[in-house]
This record gives sequence, C-alpha cells and structure tokens, in this order.
Amino acid sequence: MNSSAVLPLGFRAAAVACGIKKDPNKLDLSLIVSDRAAAAAGVFTQNRVAAAPVQVSRSRVPSNGVRAIVANSGNANACTGEGGLADARRMTELVAAHLGCSPDAVLVCSTGIIGERLPIAKIELGIQKAAKEIVAGSETLELAARGIMTTDTVAKTSVRSAELNDRLIRLAGIAKGAAMIGPNMATMLSFVMTDACVHSESLQPMLKAAVNQSFNRISVEGHTSTNDTVLVLANGAAGGSALSGVALAQFAGLLRDVCTELAQAIVRDAEGANHFVTIDVEGLRTDAEAHRVAKAIAESPLVKTAIYGGDPNWGRFVSAAGYAGVEFAERDLSLWLNGLLLYDHGVPVPFDAADTSDRLRKEKETHLRLQFTLGTARCQFWTCDLTEEYIKLNADYHT
Amino acid sequence: MNSSAVLPLGFRAAAVACGIKKDPNKLDLSLIVSDRAAAAAGVFTQNRVAAAPVQVSRSRVPSNGVRAIVANSGNANACTGEGGLADARRMTELVAAHLGCSPDAVLVCSTGIIGERLPIAKIELGIQKAAKEIVAGSETLELAARGIMTTDTVAKTSVRSAELNDRLIRLAGIAKGAAMIGPNMATMLSFVMTDACVHSESLQPMLKAAVNQSFNRISVEGHTSTNDTVLVLANGAAGGSALSGVALAQFAGLLRDVCTELAQAIVRDAEGANHFVTIDVEGLRTDAEAHRVAKAIAESPLVKTAIYGGDPNWGRFVSAAGYAGVEFAERDLSLWLNGLLLYDHGVPVPFDAADTSDRLRKEKETHLRLQFTLGTARCQFWTCDLTEEYIKLNADYHT
Repeated sequence: MNSSAVLPLGFRAAAVACGIKKDPNKLDLSLIVSDRAAAAAGVFTQNRVAAAPVQVSRSRVPSNGVRAIVANSGNANACTGEGGLADARRMTELVAAHLGCSPDAVLVCSTGIIGERLPIAKIELGIQKAAKEIVAGSETLELAARGIMTTDTVAKTSVRSAELNDRLIRLAGIAKGAAMIGPNMATMLSFVMTDACVHSESLQPMLKAAVNQSFNRISVEGHTSTNDTVLVLANGAAGGSALSGVALAQFAGLLRDVCTELAQAIVRDAEGANHFVTIDVEGLRTDAEAHRVAKAIAESPLVKTAIYGGDPNWGRFVSAAGYAGVEFAERDLSLWLNGLLLYDHGVPVPFDAADTSDRLRKEKETHLRLQFTLGTARCQFWTCDLTEEYIKLNADYHT
Repeated sequence: MNSSAVLPLGFRAAAVACGIKKDPNKLDLSLIVSDRAAAAAGVFTQNRVAAAPVQVSRSRVPSNGVRAIVANSGNANACTGEGGLADARRMTELVAAHLGCSPDAVLVCSTGIIGERLPIAKIELGIQKAAKEIVAGSETLELAARGIMTTDTVAKTSVRSAELNDRLIRLAGIAKGAAMIGPNMATMLSFVMTDACVHSESLQPMLKAAVNQSFNRISVEGHTSTNDTVLVLANGAAGGSALSGVALAQFAGLLRDVCTELAQAIVRDAEGANHFVTIDVEGLRTDAEAHRVAKAIAESPLVKTAIYGGDPNWGRFVSAAGYAGVEFAERDLSLWLNGLLLYDHGVPVPFDAADTSDRLRKEKETHLRLQFTLGTARCQFWTCDLTEEYIKLNADYHT
C-alpha cells in the first residue's frame, strides 16, 4: 500500500519461508526486532477459545521491556493444548537466545489452520535464518507484512510521521486478514512500530481506544477469530523524553490513523468482496447503541447480498437496525443510500429504483447513513458485500 | 407435507389469487374462519420495526373470541406508517362484515415486500371472493398454506390428533418461510388451528413455550423479520369442557410437535440450502447459554460454508462457540460431527478427514454435538448450510 513504507528508527525486520505453508517459497515467518527495550501494548481476541500465542503474549503486555515480535502464518497454534503453549513459548525462547534477552521480552503471534501442532523444527530453523537476515532496509516493512499473510492478496502497511516536541517521530504498521477469519486460516493480526517515546502505561489505554475506533469497527462475516492480536511497540529511538500532554494526544491520533488505515485495508481485501461499505449511524443515546446498530446491519447476509446485487432494498437495512437490540420507533429513523434519502422519519421516500440500482452496481464504494433522533452518539463502521466467491473460497477448502 | 391434512372441526378456509403478486395466477390471500368464537394466542417478532399487521394482531391476543385469520403474501405491509395501519385494520373490517362479528375478532398477517402500501382495492375483492369460497373440505389446509407462500417451494402443513378426556381432538398447522427473511420477501408465518377446548389464559403461555422450543430454535441467516407471527386458534368444536391437568399437558406436547415439524419444514425449504443441520448443545449452566452457543454456530457463515463444502473443519465450530458470550475453558468442551468425536475435552482427536468429508458431502443431514461439562442444560437447534444459490437468490432480485 505504501511503497515508501519504512520501519521507524531502531527497528529491524525479516521474513523467511520456512515450510509451514505448503508452498515452500511462500514467506511464513516474520521477525521484528527493536534494538532497545520498547514500551509495548496489546489488544487480543475476546474469543473464549484463545490460541496459545494469544495466551503467551497477553501475559507479557503491557510492558516497558519488549524487544521483538515473532509471528508465523500457515498455522494458528489454536486448540492445541499444553503442547501448543510450550511451542509458543519455545518460539519466544529461540528469539530471546539470539537477542540475549529474556523470553518475556518477546511477543509471539500465529495465524493459519486451527487444531494442528506447529512444525516446531521448521520454525526453529526459520527463526535462526530470520535472526541472521534482519535489517533496517527500506523493503523490510512490506516483507514483514508478507510473512504474516494467509489468504490476503495484498500486503497491508500504513505509515505516519510528525514532528512532536521538535523531534521527527515515525509510526509504521502492518496487518493481515482477508476476513475476520479466512478459509480455515484464522485471524486478524496487526503490529505497529514507532520510534516515539511513550510509556506503556499511556500506550495500553491509547491502543485500546484506537482499536475500538478501527479494528473493532470492521466485519467481514462476523466470525471472531481465536488469534486476533494487535500489538504496538514504542522504542523511543527518535530521542527526547516521554511524550505527554498535547504531543501525546497528537501521537494517539496518529496511532488511530494507522489502525484505521490498516483496518480498512483488511475490508478492502476481504475474501470475494466486490463493494467496500461505509455505515454511518448517528443520533443514538450512546456510542455502544450506534455500534450495535451498525454491526447488525454490517453482518446481515441479506444486507450484504442486496449490496452485491445492486438492490436498493432499504427494507433490509431498516429491519436489520430493528433487531439490533436498540430501542427506537420508526419515526425516529431516516436512511440515506449513497447520499439518496430513502426513508424519512419512518416514511418511505419515492425514488428511481433502476437508476439507484445502476449506481449501486457501478460504484465500488457504498455509503449507508442511518440518522436517529434520539441523541448525539455515532459510529462509523466498515464492511463488505457477500458474494458467491466468498462461498466458493470457504466451501471449496478441504481439511 | 401431509396429503391427508385436514382442518379440525368447526374450521373452514379458502385461498385466492387477487393480484398482489405479479403472477395473477398465484394464490396470495388466505382466509381461515372458525364457526364459533375461538380462544387465540399469538407470538410476534421482536423486531423494533414491527409491520402494521403485527401491531394490529398483537393488540388483539390473547382472546377468547377470535373468529378468523386473514393473511396475504406478496406485500409485508411493513414500514408503511399510519396508512399501512389503516390498511391492516381495513382487512379485518372486511372479514368481520362478512362474518357479522367485531373487527377485533379478526387477526391479520402479511408477508412480502417491505415499504410498499398494500393494493387495498385488490385485497377487498380478494376477501369477498375468499369469503364466498370458504369450505371445510380436505384440501383447504394445503390451499391456505399455499396462499401465504413467498419464496417457499413447498406448502408446509403439520397435523396431529389424540384422544383427550375421551374425545378425539385435532390440530392442524401451516407455516411459510424459506428463510427467516427471503429475497425481499419478509417473514415466517405460522397458524395452528385446533378443535380442542382450551382457554386463552392457558393457550398463550403454552404457545410461547412451544415457540421457544421450535421457531426460536431455527435460523437460516439470522435476519429477524419485521412480520414474524405465530397464531393458534382453539375453537372447542371437538366438544367437552376445557382441557386441564394431564390432558392439557398432553395437548401442549402436541402443539409443540406441530410447531417443531413446521419449524423444521422451514429450514428444510430454506433458500439454496443443501444440508439440514441439527446442533445439539449439552452440559451448560442454563438453557439460555446452550441456546446462545447453538445460535452462534448456526449463524456463522464459516460454519455454514464448511458444511456446504463437506469440510470437517471443526476449528470453525469450536471458535464460533468461543465467541457466543458464554464462559468456558477448552477442556470443558467435546465435539462430535455426525457421531464422530473430533475434539475431546479440548484436545483434537485424529480422524480420517477424507472419509469424513465424503460422508459430510453425501449425507443431506448433518449432526453437530457439543458437550460441555458445566451443567445439565441443553438446546437442540436447526439450521442449514450457506450456498452460492442463496447468494444468487438474494442478490439477483432487484427492487
């Protein structure tokens, strides 16, 4: 996405093909190293069935002493019991041995098939190789993004920089995910590296807020993975003392921007998707209510197929809002599709269905706006349509 | 479904084509009349956007004085404002005029497109025609079932009879729905008629319990309609005094059986479906927990596409259970697919994937069993797979 995307100061990375994926030439292990101890924060899946690497990494953040993230694709190391936990810890021990640090300073992530043990011998060789190759060069960010891809068709990166307290600071993020869970390939992963100096006590709530406004506002089919993980490392290599006040707030905005760009990139690359859909829900009593309405609409297969088919069938949008568990009357709601008012305070508005359908089919971006009259809370949410191609991708895979 | 399905004593019915549907030969209005005042109970959609006929009928049950149900297909009379409410009331007034009863004694249902006003002149003529044609003959139950069909491919009926208190009593039910909501055609409707003598005070909680164990345990794509309605009329024409005690309990069992058969018939006729899927969730703390887990699995597009593709990808089932909002640890859960143990107290069990996949593809009935170790509550739930055909049916329709 950003050909000029580079790692912030004090970070190095590598990606190698170590044979976890069937195709031996496909990158399947990424290693990201900070030359100095970094503040680290993490947000993890809410699924009760949490993968082994999630359990290990969750216990190690927030922290002010993280040195590396090691992540593999092709195998999720989920539902693998005590052996899987030992494998996840082993991955961090191997990286720690190379760096001369404690295993607690290494975070680990996995994505891929559920229920199979990792090929740990291959991974050991892969980590050795990656540790020798890590560089700070200009292509390593994209390489690291490629090393965690499963059914993704493009590498997803996002970078920002700004002058804060008279110092140039940089953020660089990567993400993977072609669905919240792909065809047997679990997971959304994202890592953001920055050379800004931020304490983990600030970083953790800041990351949580950023995730709530980005990754928690996307949905492909609504199936929450066992491996979802977002990590941020701030190593302070840009120099200066820890950010605070206005500078810290500016940094939080940049972090949210990076997360939002990466979250949207996941939806744009969603399996089989034809339309990128933005849903704006406004005028409810709380943000949680607005989020609930947006999510119910985003996850309705009937809404998704209507958009795919270019059908301005607003009854599907309104009825999905109706079962979101939020109290309202029909007269409280108005609805616009691609800027066209279709439903005005509970009353249908006559419109040119053929023309609207044509536009809906031709334009690859769809915009739904639901305006309630019950408050000032709002939510912007991103999703995609549902196509035969999604069914094919997810039905034709055989374990 | 039952060629010998007949109406209970004291009921007559008719179905006519009055031009609501585009095809002028398709039945689109059903009228069911009880010759005497019947006890009536109803259960309606939980959607905040409730159709006009739902609002009207909901205000008229439970009751001990219902004489008729009038129902049309082809138009849902939902999101139609005050005018739609007047139309729904008008339908009941027309029927009441023919029967010489109060409009309050007539219940009304609609199913079809959302957001368009009913063609009330056509419906007036249709009601006049139906009122002249109503008979008690042997084919009228199936005719009444046909009159409420939208994308259904088969008429759905279910009958039971039993000797209670030395009198033969009969139940006859009809239902429509090819999805909880079909391609622009909202709604699941079901009407059960019985000549047993049951007071509405017993009938209403009994129906609610029956619906909770039948219609509330099915899902096609999880989109709750604006028009869902289940009605039961008990006219006592079989003679005898009101059922009580053991006989009443036996009657409740028959009512539940009729509702269950009709609910399953809806899933079997679901749009584009290839597999009928039964999900048994056992061993949780409450029925609500078991229901939540079953529903999360039933509504996951990844579970549905795995079953469609014959993929014994149990990670999808386990991870869906994990995000159902029910607390458990992996070791609390075991999982069987078509009788084969795949996941034993949190540990994957080796199995012949090719053979299991073959069986999954060949057999049109799929059985998932999840056993938890946290209690004795359980839920049986029915759903279907998700196919390209469903996408096609719901994307190719244009308003």
